[in-house]
Amino acid sequence: MNCEAEEKKIGNLYATDLLPQNLENLDETRLFLQGFAQFLIQYIQDENNRDNKVLDFHQPSELLRKLDLKIPENPMNLGQLLQSCNEVLKYGVKTGHPRYFNQISCGLDLISMAGEWLTATVNTNMFTYEIAPVFILMEQEILRTMMNLIGWKPHEGDGIFTPGGSIANLYAMNAARYYGFPQIKTSGMSFMPKLCAFTSEDSHYSIKSAAAVCGIGTDNCFPIKTDEYGRMVPSALEQEIMRCKKEGLHPFFVCATAGTTVYGAFDPLNRIADICEKYGLWFHVDVKYRDKLSGIERANSITWNPHKLMGAILQCSTCFIRHKDLLLKTNQMSADYLFQQDKCYDVRYDTGDKAMQCGRRNDVFKLWLMWRSKGMDGFRHQINRYMDLAKYFTNKIKNTKGFEMVNPHPEFLNICFWYVPESIRCLKLEKKYSLLSKITPKIKAKMMERGTTMVSYQQDKHRPNFFRMIISNQATTRDDLDFLIEEIISIGKGLVMELLENVEDKENIQTNENLTEKRKCSLLNVAQIFS
Amino acid sequence: MNCEAEEKKIGNLYATDLLPQNLENLDETRLFLQGFAQFLIQYIQDENNRDNKVLDFHQPSELLRKLDLKIPENPMNLGQLLQSCNEVLKYGVKTGHPRYFNQISCGLDLISMAGEWLTATVNTNMFTYEIAPVFILMEQEILRTMMNLIGWKPHEGDGIFTPGGSIANLYAMNAARYYGFPQIKTSGMSFMPKLCAFTSEDSHYSIKSAAAVCGIGTDNCFPIKTDEYGRMVPSALEQEIMRCKKEGLHPFFVCATAGTTVYGAFDPLNRIADICEKYGLWFHVDVKYRDKLSGIERANSITWNPHKLMGAILQCSTCFIRHKDLLLKTNQMSADYLFQQDKCYDVRYDTGDKAMQCGRRNDVFKLWLMWRSKGMDGFRHQINRYMDLAKYFTNKIKNTKGFEMVNPHPEFLNICFWYVPESIRCLKLEKKYSLLSKITPKIKAKMMERGTTMVSYQQDKHRPNFFRMIISNQATTRDDLDFLIEEIISIGKGLVMELLENVEDKENIQTNENLTEKRKCSLLNVAQIFS
Repeated sequence: MNCEAEEKKIGNLYATDLLPQNLENLDETRLFLQGFAQFLIQYIQDENNRDNKVLDFHQPSELLRKLDLKIPENPMNLGQLLQSCNEVLKYGVKTGHPRYFNQISCGLDLISMAGEWLTATVNTNMFTYEIAPVFILMEQEILRTMMNLIGWKPHEGDGIFTPGGSIANLYAMNAARYYGFPQIKTSGMSFMPKLCAFTSEDSHYSIKSAAAVCGIGTDNCFPIKTDEYGRMVPSALEQEIMRCKKEGLHPFFVCATAGTTVYGAFDPLNRIADICEKYGLWFHVDVKYRDKLSGIERANSITWNPHKLMGAILQCSTCFIRHKDLLLKTNQMSADYLFQQDKCYDVRYDTGDKAMQCGRRNDVFKLWLMWRSKGMDGFRHQINRYMDLAKYFTNKIKNTKGFEMVNPHPEFLNICFWYVPESIRCLKLEKKYSLLSKITPKIKAKMMERGTTMVSYQQDKHRPNFFRMIISNQATTRDDLDFLIEEIISIGKGLVMELLENVEDKENIQTNENLTEKRKCSLLNVAQIFS
Repeated sequence: MNCEAEEKKIGNLYATDLLPQNLENLDETRLFLQGFAQFLIQYIQDENNRDNKVLDFHQPSELLRKLDLKIPENPMNLGQLLQSCNEVLKYGVKTGHPRYFNQISCGLDLISMAGEWLTATVNTNMFTYEIAPVFILMEQEILRTMMNLIGWKPHEGDGIFTPGGSIANLYAMNAARYYGFPQIKTSGMSFMPKLCAFTSEDSHYSIKSAAAVCGIGTDNCFPIKTDEYGRMVPSALEQEIMRCKKEGLHPFFVCATAGTTVYGAFDPLNRIADICEKYGLWFHVDVKYRDKLSGIERANSITWNPHKLMGAILQCSTCFIRHKDLLLKTNQMSADYLFQQDKCYDVRYDTGDKAMQCGRRNDVFKLWLMWRSKGMDGFRHQINRYMDLAKYFTNKIKNTKGFEMVNPHPEFLNICFWYVPESIRCLKLEKKYSLLSKITPKIKAKMMERGTTMVSYQQDKHRPNFFRMIISNQATTRDDLDFLIEEIISIGKGLVMELLENVEDKENIQTNENLTEKRKCSLLNVAQIFS
C-alpha cells in the first residue's frame, strides 16, 4: 500500500470483498495481504530493536478493560481487523526480543516463520498421501534424518510429528504398553497386572500425565532420586524396580531425560539402558537437541522437540519408536472410510492410521525449510554458540557480587542462580532462604513492570525461588546477558530500599489510619521477615 | 523486490545475513519477507483460478525423483530456499481451489490465514498469562462465546483448545472417567471394574482410539446401531447399556455425533440425553457447527472443531466440559516449576495445568480474527449458503441420469452418491454393486490424474464404494458443482469404454503374447465382471 488513499480504500472493504468470495478484487486481495505482511515485518523489526520493551505488562482485569475481544454481530472491515491485530501485538510478549529469556520458545527464526506462513497458506492436512503428497514425503525424509542423528539405521524405527512433547511422551508410553501387552488395546487394563513406570524426580511432568491418561495412574509412575546435579541415580532406579517387583507390580517403562527442564541435566543413558535390558523394560528418552548423546541409540523410543533448542516455530515435536510398524499397530483403528486400501497409489504412504489424531497439522515444513537454511553444520554452530554464551553467563554470574549459582556446574544451557541483595548477604542461611523465596518473585514482578527483559524463576525441593536462565534465543548476544545481570542488580537494590523503608515505618503501621487492613497486614509481614 | 538485480542480491544472502543474527540488514530482511509474502499471494491467486489444476499427481516413487528433500551439510541461500518452496507448492494439492471437495479442510479463509501468519510471527506458547496475556484472555472470550452458542451459562463449564478433534475426544473421555472414578488418575485402572463406553457405529473412530489410549480398550467401546440415515437408534443404546450392566461391565460414557463423518447424520440428542440421565452416564457430543442443536446444552462435554465447517486454518479444535474445574482437576499435575503460585498476577489465568500438553500452540487467534471478519451473522450466512449449495447439488444428483443418491435425504452438508455408467445400469444389483466398488476408485484415480477436481470416496458396511461430497469450501459456486458432475460423467464414459474394449478382446487375452501375465490377469478380471 503506497498511499494513504489506497490504504483507506482497502480498509473499508470486508473479508467477503476479497478472494475467494470475490474474484474481481484480485488487486485488493493482493494489497491487503501485502499490507498485512508489511505490518508483521514491522513488528519483527521493532521486536529486534533493543530500545523497545519486551512487554507492556498489565494485570488481567486492566488488560480486559483495554482490549476489545468480543465477537460482534456484524462483520468488521479490514481496517478494523488490522487495528485489532495492532492491539494484540501491542500488549503481547515479544518472545523474539533479544532480551526475552523466559521459558520455552525464545527467539524467532525468520526462515521457520516464513515456512509457517507457507504452511498456513497451503492449509494441508497430513493424514494421506492423496492430499499431502509432498509433505508426507518430506516428513519421511526429515524423520529419517533425525533417526540417523539418533544413531538408528534407516528403517530400524519409525517416527511421527506430534502436537507437543507431552503428547509425544504419551505416544511413547502407549506404544511401550502395546508392545508388552497388545491385548490392552482391545480389552483394556481392568483385571490386568498393575503396570508401573519410572522417571527421574527432575523429569518433565508429562510422563506422570501420560500415566494418568493411559489409566496406569500417577502413583504407579515412580520418581527416581537424582544426584546433586539433577541426574538420575541408576542404583536408585534398580532398587525401585526390584522393590516394585517384590510388591507385585509390573515394571514396563523407564524414562530417561537428556536435558532436564530445570537444571538441563543429562541422565546417564548407557547405565539406564543396561538396567532396562537386564529387567526387560522399555527404555524411553526425552531429549533436547545435542550432537552425539552416547547411549541414545539404545532407546526404544525418543521424544525430540525441534521447537525448543532447534528454534522451529511452535508446535514442532516428534516421537520415534525403534520397532518397525509398532507405531501403526498401536494406534491403528482401520477406519475404512478414510484409509481405503484400493487407492491408486501405495497406501503405505498414508500416515493417518499411525497417529492418535485423525487430522494432523503440517509441522514438518517449517522445520525442513529452517534446517535447509542452516544445513547440518549450521545447527551444530547454533548449539555451540549457545554453549559459549552459557559459559560466558556462568562465569559472569560466578564473578558478579551478589549472584550465586544454584547448581555450580551446569551441564548444558540452563543456568540457575540467585540474586542476593547486599543487605541480606550476611544473614543466616535459613533467614536468607526465606527472604530469597520472596525477593526472587518480586524482582521478576518488577522486571515485568519495567518490561525490559524476562527470565523464569522457580523453587525446587530444597531451595527457595531462583532464576532459571536458558540460552536458546538466536538474537541474544553477550551484551544482552550483561544487561540481564545489571537489570537484576538495579531492580534488587530498589526493591530492598522499598522493603527497608516499609520496615522503618513498622511502628507507624498499626496506628496509621491511611493504610488499609490488607496493606497493614502485608507491611507487617515484610517487617517480620526483617526483624 | 522491484528489479531483478535486487532479487538476485537477496537470493544470494543466507539466513544468518538477516534478522535476528544481523541487525545491519534491516532492508534485506524486509525485502526477503516481502518477496516471500508476494510469492504466497501469487499462489493464492493461482489457486483461485479455475483454469489451473487442483493437483499435479505423481506416484510416490516418481515424486521422490522430482523433489530434492535432503538436508544438506551446508546452508542453502535464500534464492535456493525460495526455489525449494516453489517446488513444494508445484506438487502439492491446492486445498483452497474452488473445485477441491476432498475430505477435511477445504477452502482457504484468507483472514484466518492472515491470522495464522501473525500467530507464527509472534510464536507464543499458550501455557501462562505471563507469556501469553492477550491470547489467554482471547481464548477465554472465544470459549465463552462458544459456550453461549451451546446454550451453557457463563461459568457453567470450561473449555480448551486442543490439537485436533480426536485429542478433544480423548480429553472428554478422560474427564468423564475422572468424574466417575477420580482415584483412577492416581491408582490406575488395574483391578477396577471394567468401564465401557458407547458410540454409534457411524461415529468417528477417534472415540475407539480414545478408549484404547485410556486403557479402557476398544472392545469395551460398543458400537450402537444406526438407522438407515446413519442416526443412532436410542432403543439400541438402552438395550446395549442394560446388556453390559448385566454382564458386569460398568457403563460410564456415551458419545453422540451431531453430523457424522460419512452421512452428516445427527444423532437424536435429547433422547440420548434422557437415557444418559436415566442410567447416570456421561453424555458427550461430537459436533459440527450448526446453530441451535436441540439437546446439545444437556451434554456433559462437547467436541467442536472450528477448522472444519467454520473454515479456520488447521489446527483449530475445542473441548468443552460442563463441570467447572473438572478440566483442571483431571489434567493437573501441579508442576511447581512452571505454575508458580506466588506470581505477580492472578494465576488462575494460567491455563497450562488444564492441558494434557505442556507447551500449547496458539490456535485461537486465527479463529478470533476470522470470526470478527464475519461477525456472528456472517457464520450463519456461510452455513446457510452451504446448505443451499447442498440442496442444489442433491437435486442435481437426483435429476442427472446415471447418478444415484446413497442416502436420499441428506440432513446436512454431506451428499453421498454413485455414478453408474450407462452400460451397467441394467445389471442386477449384486453385479452392479460389484462393479461400482471398482469403478468409483477408478474414477477417482482418473480425476487425480487429470487434476481437475477432487472428491473423497468410500464404502460402508452395506454399500460398495460411493463418492462422499461435503460442501464446505467457501470458494465453491454452483458452477463448480456442475463441473464435478460433468467431470465424473466424462471420466466414467471413457473408463467404461476402456473396460469394454478390454472385454471385447477377451478371447484374445489368453493367447496374446504382447500382454504380461499381470495384465492378462487384470483383463480377465474385468472381463469376468462383465460376463
